[in-house]
Amino acid sequence: MSHHLRCSLDRLREDLLALGQIGRNPDDKGLYRMAFTEADMEARRWLLDRLRAAGADAKLDGAANVVGRWEGADGDLPTIVIGSHIDSVPAGGIFDGSLGVLAGLECMRALRDAEVKLSRPVELVAFSDEEGRFGGMFGVQAYTGQLTLNDVESMKDPDGVSLVDAMKACDLVPSLAMEAARKPDRIAAFLELHIEQGPVLEAQRTDIGVVLGISGIFKWKVKLLGKADHAGTSPMDMRSDAFMGLADFAHEIPRIIEEDGSERSRLTVGKVDLVPGHPHTVPGEAVFTLVGRDTEPDVLRELAKSCRKVLSAIARRHRLYFEFEEMSWLEPRPCDASIATAFRSAAERLSLSHIDMPSGAGHDTQFMTDVTRAGMIFVPSANGVSHAPDEWTAWEDVHNGANCLLQALLDVDAGSEGETLETGG
Amino acid sequence: MSHHLRCSLDRLREDLLALGQIGRNPDDKGLYRMAFTEADMEARRWLLDRLRAAGADAKLDGAANVVGRWEGADGDLPTIVIGSHIDSVPAGGIFDGSLGVLAGLECMRALRDAEVKLSRPVELVAFSDEEGRFGGMFGVQAYTGQLTLNDVESMKDPDGVSLVDAMKACDLVPSLAMEAARKPDRIAAFLELHIEQGPVLEAQRTDIGVVLGISGIFKWKVKLLGKADHAGTSPMDMRSDAFMGLADFAHEIPRIIEEDGSERSRLTVGKVDLVPGHPHTVPGEAVFTLVGRDTEPDVLRELAKSCRKVLSAIARRHRLYFEFEEMSWLEPRPCDASIATAFRSAAERLSLSHIDMPSGAGHDTQFMTDVTRAGMIFVPSANGVSHAPDEWTAWEDVHNGANCLLQALLDVDAGSEGETLETGG
Repeated sequence: MSHHLRCSLDRLREDLLALGQIGRNPDDKGLYRMAFTEADMEARRWLLDRLRAAGADAKLDGAANVVGRWEGADGDLPTIVIGSHIDSVPAGGIFDGSLGVLAGLECMRALRDAEVKLSRPVELVAFSDEEGRFGGMFGVQAYTGQLTLNDVESMKDPDGVSLVDAMKACDLVPSLAMEAARKPDRIAAFLELHIEQGPVLEAQRTDIGVVLGISGIFKWKVKLLGKADHAGTSPMDMRSDAFMGLADFAHEIPRIIEEDGSERSRLTVGKVDLVPGHPHTVPGEAVFTLVGRDTEPDVLRELAKSCRKVLSAIARRHRLYFEFEEMSWLEPRPCDASIATAFRSAAERLSLSHIDMPSGAGHDTQFMTDVTRAGMIFVPSANGVSHAPDEWTAWEDVHNGANCLLQALLDVDAGSEGETLETGG
Repeated sequence: MSHHLRCSLDRLREDLLALGQIGRNPDDKGLYRMAFTEADMEARRWLLDRLRAAGADAKLDGAANVVGRWEGADGDLPTIVIGSHIDSVPAGGIFDGSLGVLAGLECMRALRDAEVKLSRPVELVAFSDEEGRFGGMFGVQAYTGQLTLNDVESMKDPDGVSLVDAMKACDLVPSLAMEAARKPDRIAAFLELHIEQGPVLEAQRTDIGVVLGISGIFKWKVKLLGKADHAGTSPMDMRSDAFMGLADFAHEIPRIIEEDGSERSRLTVGKVDLVPGHPHTVPGEAVFTLVGRDTEPDVLRELAKSCRKVLSAIARRHRLYFEFEEMSWLEPRPCDASIATAFRSAAERLSLSHIDMPSGAGHDTQFMTDVTRAGMIFVPSANGVSHAPDEWTAWEDVHNGANCLLQALLDVDAGSEGETLETGG
């Protein structure tokens, strides 16, 4: 009969709208709850109250993660963790992160109302600084024991403010961040619901995206060096035009993906600087960023290799020097197959359409995959927009996502999501 | 016997080095004689003295052109004008402009020393503001009667300083600029020697470039408008990536020139701005400059038409909007065939190798073509460099250029450069 349990959209909507008022920008252009600011801490205090009202034992852990805990019928079993984040980008919307946290809360209220007691304990976590004021995903890294005290003491935001100072300003004790770490064997699974932040579900008129993995990512800063020349006196065939090298490279991106990538591959040139950058001068230098993504480690490596080869060949053809700096390389993180199965079964029971898909964006789930069976689902983002005031998800999709999360939670608790339950992902 | 007349390289070199000291940058990184500054005026006073020492009747005309005049044997004949400029770009070299002026002066001294009296009067002009502090070629436009008083009174430099104020600060009377205009029927021809400012003569190991025409030029500001998206969540085939549109366009430039241009065509993307310009965001907007050049009016029009068509097709393919603003359109200016013939004959008599070529850069000659038979020659620029402290031309090439100018002057004076002498170009 638990399969007939449903979340209350009214309560969930009320929470989303209430939390969406905290950190509201003065001109009503979205909200801004940067980690370790007054608005962020106000949201955390609000959430602690809401968790306690729903019967949780709630606290702020040493890393400023909001953790609400409901004990299970069998106190010895490892905990199921549900989570996401409530910090935001500047001018963000009300769903990014908050949906996963508040839907988790609504799941627990729905269970309480139906007097369903899970076997396992559940922790609902709103991880701190997912959006990356201090480099990204501080809270979940602390929670999963992937930070050192040295990390904590050396982190700085783009304005040069240290994490230590930012935490102290919020009456937090930086060294306690280390105490947020959980023992992996006490965690049974991790579930996250998030808005897609992309256009795929809407375009495919699909209710639920079951995430198979979080894309790995490489970020390069590439420099093509040619020769700045007078654009009138320098014949086309005697130029070393750095921009034409970049253009020829970018033109090859679709082919590179067709040959060496997958439908989950992304290659993006997002930032370009030409030197000297004058209309009448052949660009002697082109500096650009190249960001590559794929969910498969081997494919990501092939993409990178192919980009290097193409850049190198094009540089030769245009008589350019070619330098690149790898700013970052993050391996893809596959989600757990049994958790994906639980989400799919949940969607089927709820008669929701679903597809498997990658997550091109980073999420708290990616660090949880290192310590437990972790998985996530997406619900549609209107026009694919997020990180903007007009980020929106239809209330029906909000309801679908919450119900799917609840049903998957029941399955994971019951161990019915497949034989891999106790063996890990 | 005039055909055995030669310029003195020693005297010419001395003048080039002396003038090259005026406006020297403090760190010795080239020179800067921006029009209507103290350095520019000092150079003009220096030149007036040098002209007078060479027997010329020399004055500053109302547009601050330095004009030195030597009367001919037959006072009734129209004047042959030799000229170039002595203002400079920031951190310029000692040859750009100055070579043409000082070589002209040396030609007149060589004639005087050899007691050769030309039939026609000669005017040597150092035109003001060729480099374009006030938009470009103020002096030659005044000299050729192509300016209105309204132009003079409304011109401003990029810092917002008006031409009127700049002239007054140099004790010049702006309204007198109108009096610089000459009657076209009193000018017989115009000859200019200039450094190539490009790599062609050096690469082809050629002494003299005979300029067939000054390239016309169009300058566009193009905007491609797509949609800024998260570079991770937005699949490649669902993007409207403005930069990829630009890259595909630039990639087509060689084909556009092959199909619709000539070997004298140039198409340059020199400045690119992406919005928002973040590594992890698909560029929603690409704003770039496109500068096209060719010496043939029809070819220039075909190039522009082809660029528009390609941009339009690529915009459709990438789901982009496409706007362009034509910042300027200058028609190509053909040089006079009889003057080119005189230069070629001169080079042959001097046993100098020569090729016909376009001028991709603008020169005072382009405005002189509107009023008289005008033509110019180039001498090699080391490494094709100009507008930079390491601009250089070998002394042998300086000598060759001056001698070629002298021989062509003799031919034009004698009318031996061809039957078109009195009919115009």
